[in-house]
Amino acid sequence: MDPTSLIMPSPITPNLVALLHGPDQKGLVSKVAGWIFDNAGNIIHADQHRDQEEGVFFQRVEWANEGELSHDAAATAFHQFAESIGMQSIVAVSGQRPKIAIFVSKFDHCYHDLILRWKAGELDCDISLIVSNHEDLRAASESYGIPFHHIPVTKDTKPAAEAEQLALLRDHGIELVVLARYMQVLSADFLVQFGHPVINIHHSFLPAFVGARPYHQAYRRGVKVIGATAHYVTEDLDQGPIIHQGVANVTHRHSIAALIQKGRDLEKMTLSQAVRWHLENRVLVYGNKTVVFD
Amino acid sequence: MDPTSLIMPSPITPNLVALLHGPDQKGLVSKVAGWIFDNAGNIIHADQHRDQEEGVFFQRVEWANEGELSHDAAATAFHQFAESIGMQSIVAVSGQRPKIAIFVSKFDHCYHDLILRWKAGELDCDISLIVSNHEDLRAASESYGIPFHHIPVTKDTKPAAEAEQLALLRDHGIELVVLARYMQVLSADFLVQFGHPVINIHHSFLPAFVGARPYHQAYRRGVKVIGATAHYVTEDLDQGPIIHQGVANVTHRHSIAALIQKGRDLEKMTLSQAVRWHLENRVLVYGNKTVVFD
Amino acid sequence: MDPTSLIMPSPITPNLVALLHGPDQKGLVSKVAGWIFDNAGNIIHADQHRDQEEGVFFQRVEWANEGELSHDAAATAFHQFAESIGMQSIVAVSGQRPKIAIFVSKFDHCYHDLILRWKAGELDCDISLIVSNHEDLRAASESYGIPFHHIPVTKDTKPAAEAEQLALLRDHGIELVVLARYMQVLSADFLVQFGHPVINIHHSFLPAFVGARPYHQAYRRGVKVIGATAHYVTEDLDQGPIIHQGVANVTHRHSIAALIQKGRDLEKMTLSQAVRWHLENRVLVYGNKTVVFD
Amino acid sequence: MDPTSLIMPSPITPNLVALLHGPDQKGLVSKVAGWIFDNAGNIIHADQHRDQEEGVFFQRVEWANEGELSHDAAATAFHQFAESIGMQSIVAVSGQRPKIAIFVSKFDHCYHDLILRWKAGELDCDISLIVSNHEDLRAASESYGIPFHHIPVTKDTKPAAEAEQLALLRDHGIELVVLARYMQVLSADFLVQFGHPVINIHHSFLPAFVGARPYHQAYRRGVKVIGATAHYVTEDLDQGPIIHQGVANVTHRHSIAALIQKGRDLEKMTLSQAVRWHLENRVLVYGNKTVVFD
Repeated sequence: MDPTSLIMPSPITPNLVALLHGPDQKGLVSKVAGWIFDNAGNIIHADQHRDQEEGVFFQRVEWANEGELSHDAAATAFHQFAESIGMQSIVAVSGQRPKIAIFVSKFDHCYHDLILRWKAGELDCDISLIVSNHEDLRAASESYGIPFHHIPVTKDTKPAAEAEQLALLRDHGIELVVLARYMQVLSADFLVQFGHPVINIHHSFLPAFVGARPYHQAYRRGVKVIGATAHYVTEDLDQGPIIHQGVANVTHRHSIAALIQKGRDLEKMTLSQAVRWHLENRVLVYGNKTVVFD
Repeated sequence: MDPTSLIMPSPITPNLVALLHGPDQKGLVSKVAGWIFDNAGNIIHADQHRDQEEGVFFQRVEWANEGELSHDAAATAFHQFAESIGMQSIVAVSGQRPKIAIFVSKFDHCYHDLILRWKAGELDCDISLIVSNHEDLRAASESYGIPFHHIPVTKDTKPAAEAEQLALLRDHGIELVVLARYMQVLSADFLVQFGHPVINIHHSFLPAFVGARPYHQAYRRGVKVIGATAHYVTEDLDQGPIIHQGVANVTHRHSIAALIQKGRDLEKMTLSQAVRWHLENRVLVYGNKTVVFD
Repeated sequence: MDPTSLIMPSPITPNLVALLHGPDQKGLVSKVAGWIFDNAGNIIHADQHRDQEEGVFFQRVEWANEGELSHDAAATAFHQFAESIGMQSIVAVSGQRPKIAIFVSKFDHCYHDLILRWKAGELDCDISLIVSNHEDLRAASESYGIPFHHIPVTKDTKPAAEAEQLALLRDHGIELVVLARYMQVLSADFLVQFGHPVINIHHSFLPAFVGARPYHQAYRRGVKVIGATAHYVTEDLDQGPIIHQGVANVTHRHSIAALIQKGRDLEKMTLSQAVRWHLENRVLVYGNKTVVFD
Repeated sequence: MDPTSLIMPSPITPNLVALLHGPDQKGLVSKVAGWIFDNAGNIIHADQHRDQEEGVFFQRVEWANEGELSHDAAATAFHQFAESIGMQSIVAVSGQRPKIAIFVSKFDHCYHDLILRWKAGELDCDISLIVSNHEDLRAASESYGIPFHHIPVTKDTKPAAEAEQLALLRDHGIELVVLARYMQVLSADFLVQFGHPVINIHHSFLPAFVGARPYHQAYRRGVKVIGATAHYVTEDLDQGPIIHQGVANVTHRHSIAALIQKGRDLEKMTLSQAVRWHLENRVLVYGNKTVVFD
């Protein structure tokens, strides 16, 4: 064997990552691997899943694009190939970092956690703007060097506020909004008009304790474990597809304040992990569930 | 200091263990410690808790009874003392092992786990009888040397079946029933007539997924963590005071069958831990919650 | 698309499972998928890993064998194909359950846990015999219906005892030995002559606390977490490739006896998980490490 | 009962917290509780532990000081009382926040985590200064509003650097140094001259992988769990009393870089928890171990 064949690109910097899904059929793994091989690609990693009940095939495949096509051209070609075998696909090109916006209110633990991980190189994106309904985090955002936009929201001004938010998101080419304890419900209209994913952190182990003040609910029920849930936002509050959940043990000694403090760690770890997986193109939504290729 | 004062009974064999609770007031810790000292007791361990919202004081105290009173007499005297300071109390005397009954249906993982831990010395009780609505576990029970009673239950025969169960429990002096995946709902009347605690294992992270087939519910919702909940049984199904909860991570790869398999480990660990704490007099119920002195 | 293409074998009953590894080279994923497709196989699941530092490729692939070749013939053909592309491989055929032997001493928690899981259908094997240096578990083995062999071991009789063990293993066609807290060290010569894997559970978080009485060592060091390690046995005590590790929090309140009790749960969960992965052909050893395709 | 007796100070703001330990003897719990009651104190929480092997008694007690003595005077009086019954004690007075210094090098995750928790009110202290052997964190420290001191350390300048550090610590009245991945070994002489506790975070599950580059060691050994250990610093590197340990599962997929990234979360959570417990007077050291009253 040619010893140079052992030299390979690092698995953490593939050139292309595709997520595909569609009706299951025989030979899909082979067809996808064959197309990539025929187009001078070298598969770095591939993972797939079959939902037996629904008869759906899911795959995530990363490859080094070593042929003559540019990465963009290879991505387009793969997308067309996937379509030809009945699969929907999203193909991400290495080096194209999506722009994201963080929506935040006053609680700042998830906000800091996301930004510090981003600065440490853990999140492959550009955090382009911070949007808040309060002024509190302006100074912190400025010291991080990220534009901060204060858009107050009241019942009456909500439509106007959402219009202003949408304009900002469009102007900056934002492809993901992260609600880092934003405390406001986005309207169905906002979600449709934005047209990209929104990830939220709910401070309970869904489906337990939907709605407001989940730590108060947990305290009253006397649970021995609390949780946090990161999910895609849909029209139905707290009902969207779950990406990740974190849990921690508690006892009768935990007052509501102690639950809230302990929960902060859960919330930030769980949200950051979900955002990281999303940014690495590891999450596929189908129905109201997710496939996470971790 | 007298070097012999360093010789003390082992902390795992106190002579008396009291659980007490009542309205909070100044000096309770001192009063209890003082009474024990004055009555030739040596406190091995004491733990207490205040519920700030309710203004309730809870304490668990273990002591070596080194005076002239017998353990039983000391227990009675302490109980009266507690009453005199406005506290309700339960006092357990070392060496008096409560008799318990295990109710089981066909799923046998919790059943085996409880019995094997008991044989290994982890559960300080006598497992006096097994009650089942099926014959399946007769041979296993006999090889363990525990009397097995088959009491079938149908909608029509339920009152008669419960009467038969109650008679058995009374005849054997049972002080705790453990529902080890028993799959039948006990009537409110049964609970009143039995008059002792009943511990159940519910195969979900309550309050999520109450009722039937919680793993199916969890699968449909697409959760990323599953749980099991050990609780005291009350009239309201799955609403009783929670003693312990266990959780485990799952992914989209877990089919319903895989959730059920993974859940078995959770169920047995969670139930056995709850039963152990109960038997060690570590659990106090108030309202619909528990204080667990672990 | 032909709707019948949606009908597929269940992912938990593939006909063939191959584990392969060898020097990394371009196009391996495609070559393997292509071979299976060309031979009327339908890939149910495939997972692979590249060790970047060593330049080694690892893959586990499960497929439904839907062609004219028998499963055995397909397995042989795949093995030859793998060799032709420079890969070593092991191919398991569905329905061929390996025979295993459990070696045990007096501690019985891992022993019961393995057998109860096996009876519950969690372990795809035949537990053909129990070997022990003590008589204690004869009755339990008989009630489980598994042949029990008492082979005492002393320093002087060890060679003879090992010869007797080896003869038993050979006579029964044993392909895996599980040391369920066996407490005896197997000689290098035994390992060579047996020629199949041996899995051991060490009651610490290796490489901490190698050798005897790890809970005593942990107590003295004052650690706040204890562990258990399941590993393949090699000549060097406690140095073999690690398959799985479990951990649990402890505090200053845990006496050595309490550490031992808490550790029992870790040991049995960790060992059973490792054995399950091994039996599902999920574990590849290279150097002194494992790749576990879970 | 007088209903006003139900009005009590919040358990999270006791006026005095005492940690005491000494040779075990009969009646200690009662004596301590009695002294507090006699001196118009109301015990909010008390916890104790006996080390059976060593015959040592440990207690942590919090109380509301409701008598005529000032808190300082009550603290002094309790200390003398403890001495009179053969106990060593430390008594903290509510509202006296210790001053702490953080030593940091270039890795900033523990540094940010500590400061953000402090700003969120989780750490009851004053972070008075940051000391670093590099300039990297000057700007961040200034934006946090904390004085930053750059003291380079080379083999030759170490004695002078430590002298400069000690002068700073003395001038600011520092009572705790936290090594937040400081990467330099403090000399025995430094520890003696400082005379207060120093808490370090070691990036492995001690006693596994002492010394340099523990993630590299873990990778080579092929462990399936990694850890982090917060401990008091003693003369012997990585051998001091352990306060807290955190662990996380890893697989063969984790490269060294991935271990380091995953470990960052462990390190910061583990260190911050240890510092919090220390600041809440929950940690007692004896021999080379700790009692943590959590």
